[in-house]
Amino acid sequence: MRNLRFALLALLSMSAFVARAEFLNKEQQQQLTSLQETAIQSDLAYDILESLTTEVGARMIGTKGDQRAIAWSQAKMKALEFDKVWTEEVTHYQWIRGDVEAKVLAPFPQPVVAIALGESVGTGEQGIQAEVVHFNDFDALKAAEAGSLTGKIAFVSYRMERHITGKGYGKAVGARVSGAQVAAEKGAIAFMMRSVGTDDNRAGHTGITRYKDGVKRIAAVALSNPDADMLVNQFKRNKPVEFFLKVTAVRNEKVAVKGANVIGEITGSQYPEQIVALGAHLDSWDVGTGAVDDGLGMAMMMAATSHISNLPERPKRTIRVILFAGEEVGLLGAKEYVNVHKDKLKNHVIAAEWDFGLGRIYEFKTGVGAEALAGVREFAQQLAPLGVSFNPVNNAQGQSDMSLVTKEGVPAARFAPDGSTYFDVHHTMNDTLDKVNPDDLRQNTAVYTMFAYFAAQTGIDFRK
Amino acid sequence: MRNLRFALLALLSMSAFVARAEFLNKEQQQQLTSLQETAIQSDLAYDILESLTTEVGARMIGTKGDQRAIAWSQAKMKALEFDKVWTEEVTHYQWIRGDVEAKVLAPFPQPVVAIALGESVGTGEQGIQAEVVHFNDFDALKAAEAGSLTGKIAFVSYRMERHITGKGYGKAVGARVSGAQVAAEKGAIAFMMRSVGTDDNRAGHTGITRYKDGVKRIAAVALSNPDADMLVNQFKRNKPVEFFLKVTAVRNEKVAVKGANVIGEITGSQYPEQIVALGAHLDSWDVGTGAVDDGLGMAMMMAATSHISNLPERPKRTIRVILFAGEEVGLLGAKEYVNVHKDKLKNHVIAAEWDFGLGRIYEFKTGVGAEALAGVREFAQQLAPLGVSFNPVNNAQGQSDMSLVTKEGVPAARFAPDGSTYFDVHHTMNDTLDKVNPDDLRQNTAVYTMFAYFAAQTGIDFRK
Repeated sequence: MRNLRFALLALLSMSAFVARAEFLNKEQQQQLTSLQETAIQSDLAYDILESLTTEVGARMIGTKGDQRAIAWSQAKMKALEFDKVWTEEVTHYQWIRGDVEAKVLAPFPQPVVAIALGESVGTGEQGIQAEVVHFNDFDALKAAEAGSLTGKIAFVSYRMERHITGKGYGKAVGARVSGAQVAAEKGAIAFMMRSVGTDDNRAGHTGITRYKDGVKRIAAVALSNPDADMLVNQFKRNKPVEFFLKVTAVRNEKVAVKGANVIGEITGSQYPEQIVALGAHLDSWDVGTGAVDDGLGMAMMMAATSHISNLPERPKRTIRVILFAGEEVGLLGAKEYVNVHKDKLKNHVIAAEWDFGLGRIYEFKTGVGAEALAGVREFAQQLAPLGVSFNPVNNAQGQSDMSLVTKEGVPAARFAPDGSTYFDVHHTMNDTLDKVNPDDLRQNTAVYTMFAYFAAQTGIDFRK
Repeated sequence: MRNLRFALLALLSMSAFVARAEFLNKEQQQQLTSLQETAIQSDLAYDILESLTTEVGARMIGTKGDQRAIAWSQAKMKALEFDKVWTEEVTHYQWIRGDVEAKVLAPFPQPVVAIALGESVGTGEQGIQAEVVHFNDFDALKAAEAGSLTGKIAFVSYRMERHITGKGYGKAVGARVSGAQVAAEKGAIAFMMRSVGTDDNRAGHTGITRYKDGVKRIAAVALSNPDADMLVNQFKRNKPVEFFLKVTAVRNEKVAVKGANVIGEITGSQYPEQIVALGAHLDSWDVGTGAVDDGLGMAMMMAATSHISNLPERPKRTIRVILFAGEEVGLLGAKEYVNVHKDKLKNHVIAAEWDFGLGRIYEFKTGVGAEALAGVREFAQQLAPLGVSFNPVNNAQGQSDMSLVTKEGVPAARFAPDGSTYFDVHHTMNDTLDKVNPDDLRQNTAVYTMFAYFAAQTGIDFRK
């Protein structure tokens, strides 16, 4: 017994020693601690974001702002002394937002603040005047009888729920994406919905809407929450609600516009062909300055990489920052990236993105090979002092753009921040720099900096 | 000694008894408690406000909304069975807001959200293109040399401070009222300022601006806080800031428009000529639904009076609700009221208004004759359970409209609510029903209900 126990203990302590030596040696641990301190004390991410929102601002794909953002991103990466910086072009069609005029005509005339959903068609210069039919949620609209909306405007008033994970978005966004086509199938001549948002500002939330082949394309708008409340209150009077809606948006599918992925990297010292991929998206909607969506991601990925590039030596693997084009209109840049880099994705050792949330990261999870988990867990202990817990579920996939990358088998790392307030500003004109808490940004940048260094410096094979 | 002590005790208890009997007898105290319970459990104030914001909405003097509000107010007071309801007309000139187009042209082109200050002139259809000169506050603008702004746009970026009393407003509002005239005197061709507001929404705060005879009238606008931040950030680059501003506002001083005070009362059973005056203002700015400014006041004054009118007997004095016309453009209704009722102001026994704040009332003070203070103090004890403390400073004056009434010698009562969030929505499109907390409204309505009953039922002479 005693011998067996001794042997077991010896084995355990040896394996612990071996594991520690293999995954994170003392020097690497010290390096992580040092990088954490650097990032926590640095204004770099905030300064990058301030520069982006001041010098560029809104950057919807195909606009002058997008062109400026592409130039700005390259210049910034070069100024940060990335080893390589390049672009990969994508094309899209033109969409021009135009204006929305929306008002209740009866029973009680009132103007309504609404915003065109992304890539909505217009109503024509005359606008439309019609009765509004109210549905409490998208399912109720779906259940409406065929032809029951002929000549009418459909209005879905479902309100998104606030949640730390942002899970309310999933329940609400279906109407934004498909509401117009469902309403049109039943004869509606326009589609209105309560914004997918948790705030109480009179600023509509835009975001992509989709049409269906063979179904008439109708104008689609989102009302601000206070305006949706007011309209619902008018419906409570049980009188017909007559409405005027004019949307001057133009969807020019025959006019091509260009965007580009902007890619920069610091080259690995030992395995330059192995890529740690950090993603964010370059484009924003056209109504705010895209500080949060996804300027935060751009700033964090660039700052994290810069902090590592300032070390005396490059880590073993390459760290690549990909600022994706046209995420908002359908992951255009990510599709292009996967297509162009198809043969090299097997050398993308792990991928992470930031495209959600405003608050501090509270959870880290991965989608990696089972054998890599022990090393990941060891790294995760380094994040614990920052309030980040490790969720060992190991089923993470890439976020947004990176979802297409990890779908191709690339391992994923995913960091969950407090998203409680994200949908207050998401896709609105209120997505501006003042919404960003510099302390939270420093902290989150520290997490990504540590992750990128760990992934690039470790010998762990994350693949499944 | 024992006799003296006994005599003193007897005297004290007698005087206490006399005082109690004089100010608030047991029945009155019970009535106050009962009214408090009624108001706390009642949705009436909220329902009135929901009706106003749903069925009327914005109501700037002279607009159709204002006309609807005048009709709505009379109908509502009649529905609440006020004993008398009437209007007293005022006239003003026409002002049409029009639109604002504002954008930075250089060094970094960006659109800017701005709103015309109330009664600003326009720029003409061509708009103006000019360099912007930045001042940190109004004093800095005042200190600028004569002629130094010739052909330029002046911009004051001072940010209002948040405070429970709203005192930050006083420091910030000077630029809104007089900034345009001061800038014009120094040669400026337009005036821009950071909104007088504490929020971070891209919604400018409007509010009256004044011109000066003999000084050129220039267009005056307020930028939202995030836009002012962005512009200040552009100035940090130390490059000339070139701007385009187009304001299509029209100030038609030759076109008369009408408004009206709407007045309703429940007639006193014993001293009908003695008036307890409760004020709020009927007009709002044109950009929100005026839920807070001053729909809250309208709803509270009407609900409080209605709660008292539901008692089996009318209180001794008349309770009069005055919904003042054109407060926002210069206390027009209050001026008219003081003028029309000049001879009867001596019978206005006390006046109170609600035109500030969103949160709960935390303080009560008065401006009454010294001899009335003991009775007021006794009443104030009834408010203590609602978290309202009595401030015995006794220097209160009327708020807003009622300031003109109390200036004529009418005693004042003043209730201070938590105003921390008031200037988040003040004079913006975000002044909508959702900002109102129904519980706070019930509580504050209870306070005014109790005050009105006390003032109308007591025998106290509040006059100085």
